[in-house]
Amino acid sequence: MRLKIFTTGGTIDKIYFDKKSQYEVGDPQAGGVLDRANVTFEYEVESILKQDSLDMTDADRDVVRRAIEAAPEKQIVITHGTDTMIETANVLAGVGGKTIVLTGSMYPAQFRDSDAVFNLGCAVIAAQSLPPGIYIAMNGQIFDPRTSKKNVEMNRFEAIAK
Amino acid sequence: MRLKIFTTGGTIDKIYFDKKSQYEVGDPQAGGVLDRANVTFEYEVESILKQDSLDMTDADRDVVRRAIEAAPEKQIVITHGTDTMIETANVLAGVGGKTIVLTGSMYPAQFRDSDAVFNLGCAVIAAQSLPPGIYIAMNGQIFDPRTSKKNVEMNRFEAIAK
Amino acid sequence: MRLKIFTTGGTIDKIYFDKKSQYEVGDPQAGGVLDRANVTFEYEVESILKQDSLDMTDADRDVVRRAIEAAPEKQIVITHGTDTMIETANVLAGVGGKTIVLTGSMYPAQFRDSDAVFNLGCAVIAAQSLPPGIYIAMNGQIFDPRTSKKNVEMNRFEAIAK
Amino acid sequence: MRLKIFTTGGTIDKIYFDKKSQYEVGDPQAGGVLDRANVTFEYEVESILKQDSLDMTDADRDVVRRAIEAAPEKQIVITHGTDTMIETANVLAGVGGKTIVLTGSMYPAQFRDSDAVFNLGCAVIAAQSLPPGIYIAMNGQIFDPRTSKKNVEMNRFEAIAK
Repeated sequence: MRLKIFTTGGTIDKIYFDKKSQYEVGDPQAGGVLDRANVTFEYEVESILKQDSLDMTDADRDVVRRAIEAAPEKQIVITHGTDTMIETANVLAGVGGKTIVLTGSMYPAQFRDSDAVFNLGCAVIAAQSLPPGIYIAMNGQIFDPRTSKKNVEMNRFEAIAK
Repeated sequence: MRLKIFTTGGTIDKIYFDKKSQYEVGDPQAGGVLDRANVTFEYEVESILKQDSLDMTDADRDVVRRAIEAAPEKQIVITHGTDTMIETANVLAGVGGKTIVLTGSMYPAQFRDSDAVFNLGCAVIAAQSLPPGIYIAMNGQIFDPRTSKKNVEMNRFEAIAK
Repeated sequence: MRLKIFTTGGTIDKIYFDKKSQYEVGDPQAGGVLDRANVTFEYEVESILKQDSLDMTDADRDVVRRAIEAAPEKQIVITHGTDTMIETANVLAGVGGKTIVLTGSMYPAQFRDSDAVFNLGCAVIAAQSLPPGIYIAMNGQIFDPRTSKKNVEMNRFEAIAK
Repeated sequence: MRLKIFTTGGTIDKIYFDKKSQYEVGDPQAGGVLDRANVTFEYEVESILKQDSLDMTDADRDVVRRAIEAAPEKQIVITHGTDTMIETANVLAGVGGKTIVLTGSMYPAQFRDSDAVFNLGCAVIAAQSLPPGIYIAMNGQIFDPRTSKKNVEMNRFEAIAK
């Protein structure tokens, strides 16, 4: 078993630059989180983008898809901004034979009470436990990206009511 | 879907009393962790024991088993001390029709860099994703309690080498 | 002894809004910090502004000065954005009979590794220990606002070299 | 200006060993705290003891006193267990020409909500601001060790009521 983590930026990796009171996407946080959690499975973190997900283009999503297709690993976690996580997940439709789990966080991993650590715990177990397919791991649940959305008002993911 | 969390004490719930420089099992941490993670599934936390797992007796384990059997929920997470987590898991063998996941942490949840938050993320997804049975969620992996152990020297869980 | 804390916004009180990925000034953090530190002196926190310090106007600074002059307390701490902290301090010149200490932080108090808690510890002791006057407490030191500056490049306060 | 920090152990440096579920004194935390606070004064941390303060002997206190007397620095911070901090402070009576500030914490520095960071902020400003003498910096205040005590029941320091 070997798990691959692709990082693309998003809130989870946001850091704070005081100089102009801005935030920017910093280095990937996922590796530090997994180290502190003392995980014992084999994994590799690879930064492929450093984007706010609102700025992600079709070309960016193509980069993500090709990286996943090229990876020999069957268990993939992608850290991603929440605003267009669903859109990227749906672009991955049809990638076969891999369990692909997208996660991220509503608050930067650098925050005291961020949801990032919990969400990464959710994502790594989902990647190891679920059959091949594309999944979202947010708010302590697994969502099918074809039938879920980010509720911006409530700042959470949810299934689309039929 | 409704998830039940039984807490039994252990390191995850340890707090620090300065008065005599001791630690003791405090109130359950799991609810606070899930609140901060902003989980959106329905769950209930119930404290059934406040034990260091080294002090757990057969009678204590019977309390745990009966609580699980009496619960209407099919998805169960148990927070437990790590030293005898495997033993308690094996006492639950034969409880049918439920996905039961034991977790805990090597460092108290009150610590800055505790593994508690990550492990609870792992456990709640395991409880929702795996078929009925008894599981350990530690170190970012799912273990079968019949074929795994805590490696005390290395301070981690691992599969028993055949 | 009674200490008054006026909060004006700035990085120390920045929170994170995911919707548009912006930082905004949130509720004052100082009270929570002092509670967790279990301070035993009498104090009161009053929010008089919620400004990024780059946006502070002369009218805002007049609000700060008048609030201090109106306060019966002799020991005053002001939490303030770092970019124009010196400027506000210098507007307070001539307020007599009070020990006034401005502090803030380079990283929001909500961050795991923020300097906010340390800086508030510095400021409350400065307010209690120093003779009447206007002071900056940043980077573990006390600065005279007439002869110091924020070094934006190095992201720290320092005395102006003569 | 150069500040010397002597560490002697105590709750502030307690870490958690899961193996036997015990807290023990670990490596000094003060240096890491000052690094994260980005202090810009010159300082040196030296570990002279690793004791729970309840176990401190007269010989240990003599070690502390001799270390302070031998140090060229005029500004001294000592991190120390809280239970006998007052006693050690009083053993230092008569050390002339130095501002000596003892501090510590009620909760280990490794805890999320520890008072350690705040207390160290208090102590370094006290060491820089107060005239030569022996002081306790705890609970956001400066105490004279000759007229104060730890109130074990309330878990805080306070002046002795006359």
